[in-house]
Amino acid sequence: MIVHVQKNIPAASLELLGRKLQAAVLTTPERHILITPSSYRSVNGEAAGVEQYIEETFVFADDRQMAALEYTKTKRTVNIGNVAVGGQTDHCIMIAGPCSIESEEQIDQVAQFLVERGIKTLRAGCYKPRTSPYSFQGLGLEGLKMLARVRERYGFSIITEARDATHIDEIIEYADVIQVGAKAMYDQGILRRCGTSNKPVLIKRGFGSTLQEFVQAAEFVLSAGNDQVMLCERGIRTFETKTRFTLDLCGVAWLKAHTNLPLILDPSHAMGYRYGVPDLAKACVAMGVDGLLIETHPNPDVAKSDASQQLNFAQFGAMHDSLRALAQAVGKTMV
Amino acid sequence: MIVHVQKNIPAASLELLGRKLQAAVLTTPERHILITPSSYRSVNGEAAGVEQYIEETFVFADDRQMAALEYTKTKRTVNIGNVAVGGQTDHCIMIAGPCSIESEEQIDQVAQFLVERGIKTLRAGCYKPRTSPYSFQGLGLEGLKMLARVRERYGFSIITEARDATHIDEIIEYADVIQVGAKAMYDQGILRRCGTSNKPVLIKRGFGSTLQEFVQAAEFVLSAGNDQVMLCERGIRTFETKTRFTLDLCGVAWLKAHTNLPLILDPSHAMGYRYGVPDLAKACVAMGVDGLLIETHPNPDVAKSDASQQLNFAQFGAMHDSLRALAQAVGKTMV
Amino acid sequence: MIVHVQKNIPAASLELLGRKLQAAVLTTPERHILITPSSYRSVNGEAAGVEQYIEETFVFADDRQMAALEYTKTKRTVNIGNVAVGGQTDHCIMIAGPCSIESEEQIDQVAQFLVERGIKTLRAGCYKPRTSPYSFQGLGLEGLKMLARVRERYGFSIITEARDATHIDEIIEYADVIQVGAKAMYDQGILRRCGTSNKPVLIKRGFGSTLQEFVQAAEFVLSAGNDQVMLCERGIRTFETKTRFTLDLCGVAWLKAHTNLPLILDPSHAMGYRYGVPDLAKACVAMGVDGLLIETHPNPDVAKSDASQQLNFAQFGAMHDSLRALAQAVGKTMV
Amino acid sequence: MIVHVQKNIPAASLELLGRKLQAAVLTTPERHILITPSSYRSVNGEAAGVEQYIEETFVFADDRQMAALEYTKTKRTVNIGNVAVGGQTDHCIMIAGPCSIESEEQIDQVAQFLVERGIKTLRAGCYKPRTSPYSFQGLGLEGLKMLARVRERYGFSIITEARDATHIDEIIEYADVIQVGAKAMYDQGILRRCGTSNKPVLIKRGFGSTLQEFVQAAEFVLSAGNDQVMLCERGIRTFETKTRFTLDLCGVAWLKAHTNLPLILDPSHAMGYRYGVPDLAKACVAMGVDGLLIETHPNPDVAKSDASQQLNFAQFGAMHDSLRALAQAVGKTMV
Repeated sequence: MIVHVQKNIPAASLELLGRKLQAAVLTTPERHILITPSSYRSVNGEAAGVEQYIEETFVFADDRQMAALEYTKTKRTVNIGNVAVGGQTDHCIMIAGPCSIESEEQIDQVAQFLVERGIKTLRAGCYKPRTSPYSFQGLGLEGLKMLARVRERYGFSIITEARDATHIDEIIEYADVIQVGAKAMYDQGILRRCGTSNKPVLIKRGFGSTLQEFVQAAEFVLSAGNDQVMLCERGIRTFETKTRFTLDLCGVAWLKAHTNLPLILDPSHAMGYRYGVPDLAKACVAMGVDGLLIETHPNPDVAKSDASQQLNFAQFGAMHDSLRALAQAVGKTMV
Repeated sequence: MIVHVQKNIPAASLELLGRKLQAAVLTTPERHILITPSSYRSVNGEAAGVEQYIEETFVFADDRQMAALEYTKTKRTVNIGNVAVGGQTDHCIMIAGPCSIESEEQIDQVAQFLVERGIKTLRAGCYKPRTSPYSFQGLGLEGLKMLARVRERYGFSIITEARDATHIDEIIEYADVIQVGAKAMYDQGILRRCGTSNKPVLIKRGFGSTLQEFVQAAEFVLSAGNDQVMLCERGIRTFETKTRFTLDLCGVAWLKAHTNLPLILDPSHAMGYRYGVPDLAKACVAMGVDGLLIETHPNPDVAKSDASQQLNFAQFGAMHDSLRALAQAVGKTMV
Repeated sequence: MIVHVQKNIPAASLELLGRKLQAAVLTTPERHILITPSSYRSVNGEAAGVEQYIEETFVFADDRQMAALEYTKTKRTVNIGNVAVGGQTDHCIMIAGPCSIESEEQIDQVAQFLVERGIKTLRAGCYKPRTSPYSFQGLGLEGLKMLARVRERYGFSIITEARDATHIDEIIEYADVIQVGAKAMYDQGILRRCGTSNKPVLIKRGFGSTLQEFVQAAEFVLSAGNDQVMLCERGIRTFETKTRFTLDLCGVAWLKAHTNLPLILDPSHAMGYRYGVPDLAKACVAMGVDGLLIETHPNPDVAKSDASQQLNFAQFGAMHDSLRALAQAVGKTMV
Repeated sequence: MIVHVQKNIPAASLELLGRKLQAAVLTTPERHILITPSSYRSVNGEAAGVEQYIEETFVFADDRQMAALEYTKTKRTVNIGNVAVGGQTDHCIMIAGPCSIESEEQIDQVAQFLVERGIKTLRAGCYKPRTSPYSFQGLGLEGLKMLARVRERYGFSIITEARDATHIDEIIEYADVIQVGAKAMYDQGILRRCGTSNKPVLIKRGFGSTLQEFVQAAEFVLSAGNDQVMLCERGIRTFETKTRFTLDLCGVAWLKAHTNLPLILDPSHAMGYRYGVPDLAKACVAMGVDGLLIETHPNPDVAKSDASQQLNFAQFGAMHDSLRALAQAVGKTMV
């Protein structure tokens, strides 16, 4: 439940009401917003004596609150550099780049390629959430600094991933969009810190996480005051092993109908093999999603991570062309 | 492994070779085709003395044989009435109708609606594979007879489901396309009987079945001599419960790249809720699939099965219009 | 919902009431039992005018009826030869034997071994539900006849599997216990036929089937008048691939608390590798299950199916000894 | 692969070899241990010129290294206070306590109850990894201080969970055993910090994590020099929803056969409902696991988290009695 409370409520009354409702309190220029656990279905007795300050109460069918489409009625807009995503726009943003930044030369090659194609948002991992401690772990801070130089040189918006809470401040300092990785989706150290930042946040769905939990990860950021949140479906883990994960487009249909957050799709990680990525990207665009996250690398075969799923430039270019035509057919514009 | 053997091999030699290779033997006008378990990787010693009759040997990376794209090089064509599906066609066939045939009046309403939209293939269940014995079980033979009358009246191709082997002969007699339901995907009584029929067969993937097993179900039909087989992905069972099943489009990308069978997609059963069906149907068409199976009902709210996922006529019509436009954008034609 | 109706209700009234409630009607020597879909929560208006014939009404929390523990209050007893399973007994029945019967000699070796250990129930497959048509498919009717001879010679109760409905009559004729395989759990051709037999039925859970669906498979048999039904958990399909399936003992705890059917556990198929079978068998016995189904073979390495999971006689014997000691510690007796 | 290298290798040679093999280097009093990604299967050319310093090389079938049973041959021993777990002991340690510490009074009640039963290890959460930001989040540092007082008063070993990396130093300071929660299993901020601590670490399996990934989480701690690691299976997420999770005892059989780490089982979280916990605990003990983690609360119905799965004291006591008898039957001692 969400309760809108007037600004002129006495501080002690607000504090008391918040405590009674076990609510998170978010104060905006217009009002106080009390956000309660889903078990609260009305303010009832808890608001006795302060009813006059209560503007409106919102109750939801399941455990969604700030992210509920029923709350805002329209989709939220997130601004990535000069590009607006979601909201009333017809944009489908293309976010592209290698799995990992590996060297100054590698990232420069990617950057030049993306610039030529008019793509404005670059992804590259610096802190890699590898399952094994004996695999390539990413360039860390050095990588972040390379990304900062690429931004200066080419004017991209940069998105990169926080692996755990120990380096979240660095990520916030260097990135334009903070990516919360699938393996970190429950990491409150990251999520709460993102909530007090003003940078856009892209939250990837944990591959073992329900849609409910996915939305609740966003609630951590939204309730702390940062409304620049996007959700990214990237495949869930199922019994099928011929593909790396299973892209959950039924889930995307649910998110589109039930939440107010822009939806970004990552077919690269879902498929795990480059041959399926273009077809899946088409499927996503046809559903009207707000953006795509696609891995591309100058020479995928020697990539230090995710070698099998990154597209080379020719493959990416062919896919990108076909997506632009398809987007038009469904009333979208690739940006 | 598949071994092509010349027709002029002596019968005893063929029989011996087949036994040594533990092979299924399929004889066509052109040749004998020996199909072996996947553990065989060459004819080696087993063919000693009859090497001269061996035309060609095909070995596959995993346990696919007759359904392997590497075997035929091109996709197989299946003929549904006058409509060719798969192969070199640009067709995306629309198969539509109610979950269950409920009455002469109901099916007539659906038929008229589909005729108006130029749709030529009607689906409707007569033997329902309901989980509970206390739910509506379908009209059975009476329903098949109603479908036959609809065919006469309107000229549709009729597709209906075999629930188990006890009525497979009836289904083969009345239907134009035999549907092997998801719950019957392993039913050898059905599959082997379909193999000796000459009618097209649409095999639905079991919701707990791997892609490997799905393809192997088709092998039962193909190896018995019926090459008119289509595969239908209809959602797999995962941990996510907000939607009924999870449509596995990564799996579709794998099937497209590895098998020679036309692919039909059923977003209705995957989603389980009508609000998501149009978007998912678009995703499927954008991937270039060979057909769709969509449930529609004159009045879904009173449907005797799958009430929540069937589209009413207005919803179906709007979706169908948008799919025709989208199909064009990806070089396909809705038929 | 289940409705107990007195025998003296007029036939027409019974028929009308059954129709109004969409009920299956089972007539026993004591009464008529009307079994309705789970949406019915009371007889309300439907029983107007015949209230006097209604003895009792049973409503259940979810979609269980004849199998509900709340219905019978105590666990049902199933009789396998002279051995009573479930009910008030302290029996844990050991059902053992090879995956497939392969030859007269092989089954005789197994039989002698089991006889020496005092085991009275022999399992062996004749119709194998193999995924691939190119694998060993079982000896079929010939195998059933061999099993009949083993029964004569040694006095075992024989349990063997119906793969599909085409040979269910043969299975019923030759077997003492009819096994409905995991891949056939939804097969109404088999289930309904078992319902009109008076032989015990062991239903294996489909590896992609929910507990709800598992219980409903039993309802097909129970509602047709055969109350000799056992449930067999044999592992479900999950994302984990290091083991063949995942034995669902949480599900067993649920079944034990919510159903009235004896529970048999099959750790062999769940694990898929013999090294884990003894430990899992101990876990099952410690939970107080009513029986075990374990695969054993004179020489597992050359077995024609499930080679990796069958125990040799030494392994089986060591396990059997430890299970007898363990059973005693939890108040059970291995039979 | 693991490479044992003599201490007398020149520093520069060690450094070079480590770099060539992309190895983590762990130096112990006896030797240098180089741990490589699983793709390395021999030292081959990389060791040219320094072969004389190489003591032994260990190669493993899959991606296990320091945790591989083939490496140590015997199970590792972990010391929790005065209690040895794993190794050559016959101990099955009982770790018990409430889901969350809620108040000084509540934890004192639990502590007295456990002391009476001779239980020496107390669990209680301070930082709760709740899915929703609007639920009870735990008492945090205040809770840790309460736990420290309980330890002083009663002499327990205390185990409590690190939710994310922001408070890992606090946890290490206050706890006797660091619990890495299921949602934090991939958190390298936590895992790497645990590696440089000398306190025992209990790693819970992520509910969407494979056994491979589970073991690799342990590798982060082991390779950093802390060999006091235990693995805790607590249920994986499957399609079944009648229970909260599915306890993966097949996985436990695999871990027992393939890793050298003590195994602790948590049936409370797996089941999610108290009625099944005692039976599942018996199953675990019968398998010969090294310990149990069971939730108990003075009054579960008012618990601030996990209310449905915590046992009250009477239930816990009855279970504990039966487990002690059972443990004896399988050659174990509850401690």
